[in-house]
Order: sequence, then structure tokens, then C-alpha cells
Amino acid sequence: MTVKIAVAGASGYAGGELLRLLLTHPEVEIGALTAASSAGTTLGTHQPHLVPLAGRVLLETNAETLAGHDVVFLALPHGHSAEIAAQLGPDVLVVDLGADHRLADAGDWRRWYSGEHAGQWPYGMPELPGAREKLVGTKRIAVPGCFPTGGSLALAPALAAGLIEPAVTVVSVTGTSGAGKSLKPNLLGSEVMGNASAYGVAGAHRHTPEFVQNLSGAAGKPVTVSFTPVLAPMPRGILTTASAQLVGDVDEAAARAVYEKAYHAEPFVQVLPEGTWPTTAATVGSNNVQLQLGIDADAGRLVVVTSIDNLTKGTAGGAVQSMNLALGFPEATGLSTVGVAP
Amino acid sequence: MTVKIAVAGASGYAGGELLRLLLTHPEVEIGALTAASSAGTTLGTHQPHLVPLAGRVLLETNAETLAGHDVVFLALPHGHSAEIAAQLGPDVLVVDLGADHRLADAGDWRRWYSGEHAGQWPYGMPELPGAREKLVGTKRIAVPGCFPTGGSLALAPALAAGLIEPAVTVVSVTGTSGAGKSLKPNLLGSEVMGNASAYGVAGAHRHTPEFVQNLSGAAGKPVTVSFTPVLAPMPRGILTTASAQLVGDVDEAAARAVYEKAYHAEPFVQVLPEGTWPTTAATVGSNNVQLQLGIDADAGRLVVVTSIDNLTKGTAGGAVQSMNLALGFPEATGLSTVGVAP
Amino acid sequence: MTVKIAVAGASGYAGGELLRLLLTHPEVEIGALTAASSAGTTLGTHQPHLVPLAGRVLLETNAETLAGHDVVFLALPHGHSAEIAAQLGPDVLVVDLGADHRLADAGDWRRWYSGEHAGQWPYGMPELPGAREKLVGTKRIAVPGCFPTGGSLALAPALAAGLIEPAVTVVSVTGTSGAGKSLKPNLLGSEVMGNASAYGVAGAHRHTPEFVQNLSGAAGKPVTVSFTPVLAPMPRGILTTASAQLVGDVDEAAARAVYEKAYHAEPFVQVLPEGTWPTTAATVGSNNVQLQLGIDADAGRLVVVTSIDNLTKGTAGGAVQSMNLALGFPEATGLSTVGVAP
Amino acid sequence: MTVKIAVAGASGYAGGELLRLLLTHPEVEIGALTAASSAGTTLGTHQPHLVPLAGRVLLETNAETLAGHDVVFLALPHGHSAEIAAQLGPDVLVVDLGADHRLADAGDWRRWYSGEHAGQWPYGMPELPGAREKLVGTKRIAVPGCFPTGGSLALAPALAAGLIEPAVTVVSVTGTSGAGKSLKPNLLGSEVMGNASAYGVAGAHRHTPEFVQNLSGAAGKPVTVSFTPVLAPMPRGILTTASAQLVGDVDEAAARAVYEKAYHAEPFVQVLPEGTWPTTAATVGSNNVQLQLGIDADAGRLVVVTSIDNLTKGTAGGAVQSMNLALGFPEATGLSTVGVAP
Repeated sequence: MTVKIAVAGASGYAGGELLRLLLTHPEVEIGALTAASSAGTTLGTHQPHLVPLAGRVLLETNAETLAGHDVVFLALPHGHSAEIAAQLGPDVLVVDLGADHRLADAGDWRRWYSGEHAGQWPYGMPELPGAREKLVGTKRIAVPGCFPTGGSLALAPALAAGLIEPAVTVVSVTGTSGAGKSLKPNLLGSEVMGNASAYGVAGAHRHTPEFVQNLSGAAGKPVTVSFTPVLAPMPRGILTTASAQLVGDVDEAAARAVYEKAYHAEPFVQVLPEGTWPTTAATVGSNNVQLQLGIDADAGRLVVVTSIDNLTKGTAGGAVQSMNLALGFPEATGLSTVGVAP
Repeated sequence: MTVKIAVAGASGYAGGELLRLLLTHPEVEIGALTAASSAGTTLGTHQPHLVPLAGRVLLETNAETLAGHDVVFLALPHGHSAEIAAQLGPDVLVVDLGADHRLADAGDWRRWYSGEHAGQWPYGMPELPGAREKLVGTKRIAVPGCFPTGGSLALAPALAAGLIEPAVTVVSVTGTSGAGKSLKPNLLGSEVMGNASAYGVAGAHRHTPEFVQNLSGAAGKPVTVSFTPVLAPMPRGILTTASAQLVGDVDEAAARAVYEKAYHAEPFVQVLPEGTWPTTAATVGSNNVQLQLGIDADAGRLVVVTSIDNLTKGTAGGAVQSMNLALGFPEATGLSTVGVAP
Repeated sequence: MTVKIAVAGASGYAGGELLRLLLTHPEVEIGALTAASSAGTTLGTHQPHLVPLAGRVLLETNAETLAGHDVVFLALPHGHSAEIAAQLGPDVLVVDLGADHRLADAGDWRRWYSGEHAGQWPYGMPELPGAREKLVGTKRIAVPGCFPTGGSLALAPALAAGLIEPAVTVVSVTGTSGAGKSLKPNLLGSEVMGNASAYGVAGAHRHTPEFVQNLSGAAGKPVTVSFTPVLAPMPRGILTTASAQLVGDVDEAAARAVYEKAYHAEPFVQVLPEGTWPTTAATVGSNNVQLQLGIDADAGRLVVVTSIDNLTKGTAGGAVQSMNLALGFPEATGLSTVGVAP
Repeated sequence: MTVKIAVAGASGYAGGELLRLLLTHPEVEIGALTAASSAGTTLGTHQPHLVPLAGRVLLETNAETLAGHDVVFLALPHGHSAEIAAQLGPDVLVVDLGADHRLADAGDWRRWYSGEHAGQWPYGMPELPGAREKLVGTKRIAVPGCFPTGGSLALAPALAAGLIEPAVTVVSVTGTSGAGKSLKPNLLGSEVMGNASAYGVAGAHRHTPEFVQNLSGAAGKPVTVSFTPVLAPMPRGILTTASAQLVGDVDEAAARAVYEKAYHAEPFVQVLPEGTWPTTAATVGSNNVQLQLGIDADAGRLVVVTSIDNLTKGTAGGAVQSMNLALGFPEATGLSTVGVAP
């Protein structure tokens, strides 16, 4: 069975990564590619690495150009997905890589994004408890944010098992592609190289409510999340350091057992051998989550480190994984556990 | 008054940075430069940026070559400083850039470094309460570690003022020069570029007891520190994100007032204007500590971010600042508040 | 038909890239993986991105461990391949990624590498005139050097067509992985980042005779090559700027026609649309050569720029492409024209 | 004697580097700082590394704000300097860091920049034959372009001595700050990191006529220049590889003697010891030009490599050096031969 897919936002980094993956997906035919201000130009102008599609002309993003496809991926700024999605039929699988359909709570949406809440869709992180089942056969998928991907998978098992207090600290070091192609001075190469900087500090980043939602769900009770993203001089990758106070005496073997049980059947999560810590480089281009944990006995905390490729598992790979579940393809189709390093 | 200085370990990064600063110090004459395996080669081979000293031949590191100087800087692997220092006279100002004389507690020393404890010297972080006075006129200085510099200055005022609980979380993103010129595979450019990785996780990094010592001193009671260093693809810089649970209701204005009071007279610490967050690039080559703070009301935490140049304020600049105090020079002599960017 | 392959030198960058490609090759079964000093450790220790092979234990490199395979890839320091190859049977396809079997002239070999010349094997750059045919059915392949790949393809068509004088200038900007995992101070991340440097200048680089051999072959007469490699702060990629004096009046359209004719049927060489210049980022992980040319009328020179991934088309991808020809598989099997960017 | 200076274009990279240097210049008082669209904001917003000037408010760039200064530096886009300069009195020293007053030939100006030629001013590269004398006491200085700085100093001595043919090839690998703070997609960190790319190829870069002018002047006859700039992933630095066919038999010792004679008295040009090749990292923040040469006997070419910091010697440092000559200060005042590395 071949499905015909369209990508709205094909000139951006998320759109480009989607197309990179879909070009190797055996069940997919690539249909319309659309853009906003870049409509009318060729894809090759924006994505010179996607050689087989270089001559494709970008169409405008609207209900007409996206019609006639089995799957529509929306890689659009927040607020735009909901509007387009409303115009696509109920039989079309709509995969939203933006934020519009991630949050359950309308109040959260208004606080963090303003405007009307578009409602919540099945959440594309199958590794969370209960999430995979909701993706099977669905026609609507909300792809997780890149930070909540690396951070939620770091802490959900420990919270679900009651190993840690429901008050967690997360610092995520990210490459620059997560910020997209926005022409902002602080994203210029001259500013980024040789530089590390924090932003959205002290609970100011929009991914915070998504963290809270995921981790509270895993814990079965409200969890507070102190989240800080740090911009580092690399194009791809998120390295997350997450920690929380231990509940009672937990040794490393017990903690490791919890994580191995949670993830042993997952195709894309690797609990690394003892003594090996994750690196973002090892995940580049793959759909992997690499994870290691330790017990800081002096501080009484569990510390978990994860690495992902923010564009693959953190965005486009997660989207394809969920699409596979929705359409009944083997979950790993078109995705790789092999990174491109060095 | 001109003092004659020697640098042991002149071929390394700390030694090179010391010489860069001392070349502009108006009260200093640069005497012997020594090294271990590089003895007999010219400084220019190792430090091609130090043009005025390029032809200087490196001597062996021993009591004879270091004799006859007013100040001896020791930029040596831990365990070596103590041995050399014991052979230098009591009238020589000895400035140890290594770890040998930082820790007060002999048990801590044995646990983290093994071997015999060499004793504690006055600690070269004048911005900590009570530290500056001990440096005036001293003949022995223990230069702080690079991570404890950015991290202790981030949290000491809040702990001293009782704003936060004595259980803190610190994640520090560091450039690679902090690891020195060790020929390890994970420090190769091919491995480092495009990569972020954590190491010494879960209380395993040797700077942890120094953090605990500094912050417990500031708090006046034991403080636990969960510290994680993250290696990022840049040569210099440490960006520290530090946080802790608030004690009672503290708003941002109150927290800011505490920090401004602590640092307003400090020549090298800048509490940035509201809304501006530190970047490591802005501190490169300067002796500055840039600092910003925020209150995460949802998580109930104070979050403080600092940036430093690990080789300057974090190592060699801190050493020169303390030397100035010890010798009675104006504290900022030979140091700059102007960075080299981009 | 499935062939069983072995990789000698599996812990290095060339070996790692080979395995990355072979993992997706549908006709290949991965057999013995061998190493020198790393024998006995797991592949995951050295290549954490090759998750499906992480647990494989590295064997010693010798005739016994390499026996019983249909194809043996040798990713070894120069001088070692010839010795091992001599012990492998004539029915085994031996693919040498090192320099031992590239040069035709024994005098050249002695001058540039010293020691005994092992003889020349069919040369794995099918895009050169006459090269593809010699690879079909061969049992011995000499994989080209990374610099000669990008540089020879830049100039061979113009020399073959007599557009330029047989005296060419080539400057190639390379990522650091071309230098392998050697633990040399100048390859440390702290030294490489923020830095560009030339090496092997003024005809001192060992790839020079290979350039001369390839380009003289294309021209049908002796060609002199002034080659300079420049090390740049990136893990992968070679950007080559090649130029030569024009013979008579040649306009850009005529020069373009020569290149389009030479490469229009090549699966991995893209002559880019006018006005678009190659970038190394667009080729990362792919087997592509991107090429653009211009006429500098004032200087009377043809200027050609190419980009490749030094580990893929420049090493391991070129090796797989040639293996495919040797074994009768479609030439592009297991290789991609899609890069991983940004 | 203290002079009062103004900087037009203080929010850009050239303006920032000027201020970094002038802050340490003992004879200078920093007056008006002006900008275009950033007028009204503080300097600290744009140049967070210039801590002592962080609170300075940027004025509009016009004749009124620039009046009342002894020296006015113009770090403006081409075409703007001439207009402003015409409104400044003849007693004011005007230092133009842009292109407006570099070219002697009005036809060249129109071809490369279009619009009316503003005339030529004394050229701020004192190391060129005859240039220093014209700078002493002048009231108008045209600061050289960054590429012609590294490239002209590489070849001028050989051309003046008749060692090489008057047809030269120059490839310059540059950091990104040379492109300024323009918000262009190809200058984003995500695009720049891990990437090398050529631009302005085949005689299309505007610095070409400046090269031709400088080198023809040195040779005493017309010189053709094939110039290609390559963008590399680093903020600062230009590494230039320049070569040309030798005239007759020239050995390395003879060539070296020519360069040592040309530069032995120059405060900022270092002909490196044999076997040592320039790196851009060694020059960062300094006003140095590091240079090495070799003879490629097989190709019959002289190859010269130079490294500079494009913002220091290549722009702002060159400007201060020439200002010193114009005002009668020691030439090296406020400039350093010590770089910031790693």
C-alpha cells in the first residue's frame, strides 16, 4: 500500500527533515510540497541536500494544494496548523508538527500561546505510557516538541515508578536548528559559534506546559518542572540533563531496572551500558534516544541524561513513527537506528 | 614596583592564558617558563599566539628553574603543585592554579583525589564573603576551579541571604579548553564539533566538593550540590544554569536586590539589565562574570545563569586578580572587562 | 545474492562510515570486524552511532579473522593493506581504502611513501574516463584519496576537452575527520574550532602524485598540480576550488556544456544550476559530488568548485560504489543522493 | 595629547572591534557612537562584550552627531561613507572602513559598485611599498578590505622582487564576521556550522579590483588575480593561500630572504620559522599577519600562506594603525601582537 503525502512548510528545517526521511520510506509517494513566502521557488533553493526533489516547485499552502493526499504533514508556525487542519477532511491523516494540538488544557494554551485553543490530538510519543494505543488508526497526530521529547523520556519511568519527588529540574542543551530559519541576529553564525547562551529561563519557555502535562501524566499527580534551554554551537542535537530528589533509598541497580523495563521493547530508546554517557553526535540523523542514569548519593538525586537529534526523533522522525502507527505500517519503517558520525 | 614571575606549565592552556594576561600587566617581568615533556622546545611551538615570547625556550619544572622569582604560578596537574610548592621559600608568592590547595577537608581530598592532603591556602575568589581580606598580603593562593567559579558566584548571594533551600542544582556547559591539551579521543575536533555530551554526572566530578565548600560557607550551613558538566563545541566559556527551591515568597525584585547588593562594587561581576541573559561569547578574553536571574513561580525556584571565560576568570584571570590583591596592586591591573566578540 | 563482508579497521572513521553504509545495503551480510589496539573491545565503544552493531567485539586484524568472506575492506594505515592483501585469496574481492595500490609508478610510491611498491589496482573512481569498465568484475580495488576525488572530478572534463592549460591550482578545504582519530595536539577540538590552517603546502601532501596521475590521464599529457589542503573547523566535507588558465576563448556556456556532457549520466555528480555554488553541508552523508564552474574573464581562468563528504564519496561511499560495480550490483545500491542537513 | 573620536556604525562587527581596540588606546577619548536603525538603543544591546560602554545610547549617523570630534571612523555600507565624509571638515581625520575611497580608477568603481566614484584616499596598508609615508599626517584614510589585506601582503614582496609571474591565484578561507550582521539565510548558524562554501567565485568578488590595484602597484606592471573566497565555520579569521608561477629558478632560501627583507622591520608581520604554517587562531584579536612560504618545485610555483584576524588587522586594527601614523602616535599604540587562543 502506498500513501500519497503532502508537506506544508517544506522549505523549513522540519519540512526538510521530513522529506529526507520520507524519501527512503517504502510506502510513501511524495505529493505536494508547499511554503509561504517561498512559494514559486524550487525546493533545491532551500534544501540543496534533497537532490532527488531539487527541481520540485513549492506551491502555496492552502486547502486546495493540500487536497487529494492520504497524509498531510503540517510544519508550520503555531496558530497556522489549526486553521489549515480544519479544512482537511476527516479521512485524511493530519500530522501536526507544530504546537497547536499538543496541550489538553485550554487555559494553558491561552496562557502560553494566546488565541483560541484548537483542541488536543493523540500525542505522538508512543514511548509514554498509554500513548501508543491512541496512535493506532488515528487520523490526527500532535507531534511532540523537541525539548519535551528528550526530557519526558528521561523522567517518565522514574515518576511512574515513584522513584523521585514530583519536582524536577531539566536543562537541555540544543543545537540551533530547533529555532528554525528565522532571521534573528542572535541566530547568525557569527553569534552562535563559540557561544553558549540560555533563553526562556525560569519557566518562560513554551515547552514548559507540555513537560508538565507529560510528566504529570506519567506520575499520576501534578509535577512541577524547572526547565532551562541552552543554545549551543551545533546545528542539531539536544542533550538533556534531568534530575529530581529521590524518594527513599534507591540504588543505581534499582533505578536502572526501572528504565530497562520501561524501554527494553522500544525500538528507538537505548539505555546505554553502565559507564557510557549519551552524546548528541551519536544520534544525528537517527530516530534514537540514548539514555544513561546515575544516583548522586550525596545530593540524594536521580540524574538522567538523554540525547536525541532534535530534527529527527525530536520532530520529523517522531512524526513518521507516529504516522506508521496510525497507518498500520511497522513502526520503524523509513526510520533508522544508525546515526551519521562524526 | 616590578615583580619577576615564573610560570610552571607554560605550554598548556592555563599557562598560555596566564602569559597572555601577564604580557599586558604593567608591574610584571616575565621570567622562567617551564614545562614537563616540552622542556627544551620554544614557547612559540605551543603558543603561537604569544608572539613576543615565541622564541623563549621552556625549562624543566623544578625548584632550581623556579628560584629567584617574586611570584611563581603553578599550572600543573593535581598532585604536582604541592610537591613543588614545598620547595619554594616562604617569601615567594606561590599561586596554584591546580586543585592541591583548594579543599579544607583532608577527607574530601582523599576521597576525590587520593593521596595526602597538602593543606588549604587562601582561596582566590575575592567575590565570596570574607575571601578578599584573606588574599591581601598572602604568600599562598589556591586558584578556584573553573566550574566552582561560575557556579559559586551564581548562588552564594541567595544562600547567604536565605532566599533558597540549601539543596541546589547546577548544570554547566563548558568549552573544551577546560580539559586541557590531553590527547584523549573524545577531545578530538572530529568528536567535539557538532556534539554535546555530559560527563562526571551524578556527583562524579571532582569540582563537586569545592562547590559544596563554597556554598556551605556562604549559607552558613551544609548545602548539597547536584552538579553536571556538559561539554559543548566551543574552545572557551562556561555557561552555568543554577537553581534551587525558594524559601517562602520571593519576587524577582527582591532577589535582584540581593544580587545587586552583593555585586555592585565588584569590578568583574555584572548583574545584567532585566531581560538580558548572559552569553559566554561576551566574556571571552575578559575577566567578567555576567549574571542574570529569574523566579520560576510555577516551579517555586530561583534560577540564576552566569557566563565566564573558563580560562580567564575561571583560571588565569582569577589568578592574576588574586595576585594583585596579594601584592597590593589595584585589583584589576592587567585584567580587562572588555571581551573579544564575535 | 548476499555477500559476506569483513571490515579491517572498523574502529576508525573510514571503517565506521563503511559500516554505516553497509548496514543499509540489501545484498550484504556484515561479518568480521577487526582492529589493531582496540581488538577485544566492542564496536559500540568506538562507534556509538552504529547501534545495531554496538555489541560486536572487534577481532585482531589478520588473515585468519578475515578469512571466509566474499569481500574484505581494508581501512588501514598505508603500508598495512598490501601485507594483508597478499594473504587473501584471488577470489576474494579486496577493497583497499588506503594508499597502497593507487599509484602506477613505483618511483612515485618510493618518493612519497617509501618502502616497496605493492603495485596498482583498478582505481575506484568510475567517473574518470575508462575507469568504470576496469572495475566491473575486478577482485581488487584501490579506493581513491579524499582530496583527489573532489579535485580530479573538478578538472578532468576540462583537461580532457583541452579547455585549460595542463598546469592547475587546487585548494581544498577539509573537515577534520580526514585526519582520522590520530591523537595529535593540532587535531584537538580546542585547537581546531575557530581555526583554519594550511598543511602539506607547496607540493608536500601525499595526495599530490595521485592528482597528477588522474589529471595527466584525463589530459593525455603531463599535468602539473599545485595542491594545498586547508583544515577547517568541521567534522566532514571537502570544498575544492580548482582553476587553470584557459586555452583560447572559452565562454561559460561552452565550459558548462563540456561538464554536462561528462556528468549527465553519472548517478552521483550534480552540475548545479547556474548561480548556485556547492556547499559541503549539502553533501553530508550522501555519495554526491556537487559542482559548479565559472569563467574569470579578467584572469583568463576556468574556476571549478566541488563539494563532497570526505568520508562518503571521498572514502567509504566510493568504496561501496566500486564494490557494486565489481560484484554486478546496481551501482547506487546502498548509497544515497540525499544528504543530512543542516 | 588626547584625541576625541566618533564611530559611525558602532552596532556592527567592524564598529564593535574598533571600540574594543580604542578602549585600550591611551590617547583616545571615545565620543559619539552612531548607528542607523539601532539609533536610540544602548550599545550593550548590540555589543555585550564592551562592558565599559554598555550604557551608551547610539545616536543617528549624521553630520551633527559626528561634529566636534578630532577623528571620525566610518564603518558604514559602501556608498554611505562618501556622503558623510563630504560634510566633515578638512581638519577632521576621517577614517573610512568601507570601500568608497579605496580604488583609484573611476571606471573600476562604476563597474564593481556602480554610482559615482568618490575619489581615492591614502591607503591604510603601511606595509605596502610607499604606503606608510602617505599616511603620515593625512586627514583622510581608506582602510583596506579584509581579503586584500591578507592576500596583498602574501604576494607583494615576490612581485616587487620579480620572483613570480604577474598572474596569481588566491583562495581565502574566511570566518563569517566578514559578512557583517546581515540577516541572510546562508549566514544563519544552522547553515554555517559544519559547512564550507565558496562565493563570489571566478572574479565576481568586489575585492578583486583592490587586489589588482595593490599587486600591480607592487609589481610595477599589470597583474591578473584569480580570487576565490571560501566561507568557513568560524567567527573570525582569514587564511589565504596564494600562489604564482616562478620566474626562473628560485629556491626557498632566496624567496625567504625576499620576504624577510620586506617585513623584518614591520611590527605586525611575522615571517614564521621554517616548517611552521600560519593558523588563524593564533592571530585572533591581534593585529598580526602570520606568513609562511614554500616552493613547489614540481609545479614550479611559489606558495604563500598568511593568516589574519579579519576584524583586527583586516579592518579595525588596520584602521587604528593608520590613525596612529596620521596623528603621529607610535604606530603600534592600542594594538597588540598577542592573540587570544585557543
